Amino acid sequence: MENKNILINGANVFKPDGKVEVADILIENDKIAKIGKIENFEDATKIDGRGKFAIPGFVNAHTHASMTLLRSYSDDKNLQDWLQKDIWPIEDKMTGEDLYFGAAAAAVEMIKSGTTAFADMYGPYMDRVAEVVEESGLRGVLSRGIIGLFDGDEKLATNVELYKNWHGKADGRITVMFGPHAIYTCPPDFLKKVAETAAKFNAEIHIHMNETIQEIEDCLKNYGKRPFEVVAETGLFDNGTLAAHCVWIDEKELEIIKDKKIRVVHNLGSNMKLASGFAPIEKFLKNGIVVALGTDGASSNNNLDMLEEIHLSALIEKCLACDPLLIPAAEALKMGTEYGAQAVGLKDVGKLEEGYKADIVLFDMSGIAWQPCYNPVSLLVYSANSSSVDTVIVNGKILMEKRELKTLDEEKIIFELNKCAKRLTGN
Amino acid sequence: MENKNILINGANVFKPDGKVEVADILIENDKIAKIGKIENFEDATKIDGRGKFAIPGFVNAHTHASMTLLRSYSDDKNLQDWLQKDIWPIEDKMTGEDLYFGAAAAAVEMIKSGTTAFADMYGPYMDRVAEVVEESGLRGVLSRGIIGLFDGDEKLATNVELYKNWHGKADGRITVMFGPHAIYTCPPDFLKKVAETAAKFNAEIHIHMNETIQEIEDCLKNYGKRPFEVVAETGLFDNGTLAAHCVWIDEKELEIIKDKKIRVVHNLGSNMKLASGFAPIEKFLKNGIVVALGTDGASSNNNLDMLEEIHLSALIEKCLACDPLLIPAAEALKMGTEYGAQAVGLKDVGKLEEGYKADIVLFDMSGIAWQPCYNPVSLLVYSANSSSVDTVIVNGKILMEKRELKTLDEEKIIFELNKCAKRLTGN
Repeated sequence: MENKNILINGANVFKPDGKVEVADILIENDKIAKIGKIENFEDATKIDGRGKFAIPGFVNAHTHASMTLLRSYSDDKNLQDWLQKDIWPIEDKMTGEDLYFGAAAAAVEMIKSGTTAFADMYGPYMDRVAEVVEESGLRGVLSRGIIGLFDGDEKLATNVELYKNWHGKADGRITVMFGPHAIYTCPPDFLKKVAETAAKFNAEIHIHMNETIQEIEDCLKNYGKRPFEVVAETGLFDNGTLAAHCVWIDEKELEIIKDKKIRVVHNLGSNMKLASGFAPIEKFLKNGIVVALGTDGASSNNNLDMLEEIHLSALIEKCLACDPLLIPAAEALKMGTEYGAQAVGLKDVGKLEEGYKADIVLFDMSGIAWQPCYNPVSLLVYSANSSSVDTVIVNGKILMEKRELKTLDEEKIIFELNKCAKRLTGN
Repeated sequence: MENKNILINGANVFKPDGKVEVADILIENDKIAKIGKIENFEDATKIDGRGKFAIPGFVNAHTHASMTLLRSYSDDKNLQDWLQKDIWPIEDKMTGEDLYFGAAAAAVEMIKSGTTAFADMYGPYMDRVAEVVEESGLRGVLSRGIIGLFDGDEKLATNVELYKNWHGKADGRITVMFGPHAIYTCPPDFLKKVAETAAKFNAEIHIHMNETIQEIEDCLKNYGKRPFEVVAETGLFDNGTLAAHCVWIDEKELEIIKDKKIRVVHNLGSNMKLASGFAPIEKFLKNGIVVALGTDGASSNNNLDMLEEIHLSALIEKCLACDPLLIPAAEALKMGTEYGAQAVGLKDVGKLEEGYKADIVLFDMSGIAWQPCYNPVSLLVYSANSSSVDTVIVNGKILMEKRELKTLDEEKIIFELNKCAKRLTGN
């Protein structure tokens, strides 16, 4: 019979105030029951936290997990060539099996790099991604990516099915949102329909917004207004929105984001690789907007490593603004954890605090990148890489311990992933 | 008796033309003897190259290895506060022992992250860093960092001693350069003296140039000219120069760099963290200037991970110029290897080619970040991290195999490093 309590002793704990203190952590069922000095507690699975850095698990707030199958398939291309000549044609051929193993490989990578929750948009066959969430033990915020230019109603219906079948499932680890892809793939009338449908279920929205200048220009040409204005008028922002990218934003759009309490996802690595531009993150934060981090899909990043995004996000704002005081290490770490959880709508996730869900990652601080240790937060954000993720707990369950996966068979998944890749590309 | 031949079979080999082919590599003594199909070769240490990606070792073209002792000691500060209030006061207290263990920890980190050669500037006690180069098996290009504002002659004399004692030593793995720190710490008259002294020994120069706007403004105020103009007039650039940073460069200075064949080091991570600015790398490359990559010291980066610099350098040019075709993966990899070797003056290093020195790194391609494998170069630059460095060979000698260090005692070095850190900071 599984022990429902876990005791982590003597870890360096990243507190919600950005400070670090050595403490024990008691997990009861799916929650953090206590952080502090815990004595004489026998009835628990013990994890030695000494020499470990405990943080809330990373939240990857915008990705396309199944695209892991397309990692390194097409790089160093112009965005339109990349999408239209390479990515879309091969995506057309992808089966449910492909989505499943792409997402399973993503789950392996996410757990091994310290991610405990992810917001995903892809499709069709998002039910296969939901299966991966159920089996892996991760937390998933899933939406069917809907390109409304053709067969929109049919796709919207599969998002409804996804909601009905999976929302709240897997011990509450799955949330379902609606995923209209973007303004350039979903006309306003269709967005209105999505908004009405989502509202019926009280479901939130996950959408790409203002990723490229081209998108803004096309929107101005087609509708005489900028994307946030057009979309706001459809009612799509009225029920809670997770907006990925948000690179090119004017003052009026900033007001819409604040007014509608839209949560922004900074996809910096992907935006840089595709040369889309730098989102005005410091401005968002100053305006009280929730900013999360996301990797985007592995075909444009090319990995799902949140620590890289945290590191990169801490560096870029400083240099763009010529101000080394911007986004200090603890703030970057919060973007990847606490703010991420807020952004994807997980209210009791993202902090190491009593009563919060036990989504915890332990980093092994014994490696050379952690020496000497004057400041663990600096070391994590500026020096370490994700290979020092040691133990991963989600919802009170151990998914990895001492780098050994407990829920997924990495070898089998890699084997099957490569089989899918060979079939897809004929190589 | 040590076997002087090494045979690596069936590796994915990164060729000088940027392509990848499966081949065997035969190492005889310190050199690559053959790359291709090698049959019936018995008299060699065998390394299984299958499922491995073989590249020339990374060249860290500008660092301060001993500053690894100050990693995470001071972060998220203004450059002047960082230097004057935190770094310089603690550096004043550093002993030869501190420099030795700082550099030894750096050597551990460099080998484990795939670096085979590094250009170092620090001081005093650079002889202790030379000892680390000798013992570790790495290749070192060493210079005494000379702040000429006070005791300049004495410091210059220690650089001369360093040259006499160590240049060409350790089986030719050590080169000594002269290291006048920068224009703001070395007046032109003193630079002239350094130039003359270095010329006597036919030694090259390693210097910080144009790192911050402040430096340019001060130089204009003091000398009425920009740094490259002032320094060029001292003769310092006449005998071969490695110039770190080069962030703020005007057209006239670009001409000096071209004319004097100055090799530039891009210290992107450090420049971003300290908010110094983005060096015009694409412009340098278009003008035929050799651009290498460097981590700078671990107190401003905060690690010595060249793969991170390669990744970052590939991303940043794309996004700054809104052109996703800039610095494709293979070009970024060459900046960290081939161009790095050129920059630090190692003429037969930096390529996997017959006759070149056997400085080779093998990456284990079995991890999840390498799946699926449509393109190993993309995977290395955009997806993998340095934890997949498996085997490191320098000058035909194995320094690490299957992540086990052969020349250094990591545990002891970390223990001693932390002892130094405690003594220095009183914690």
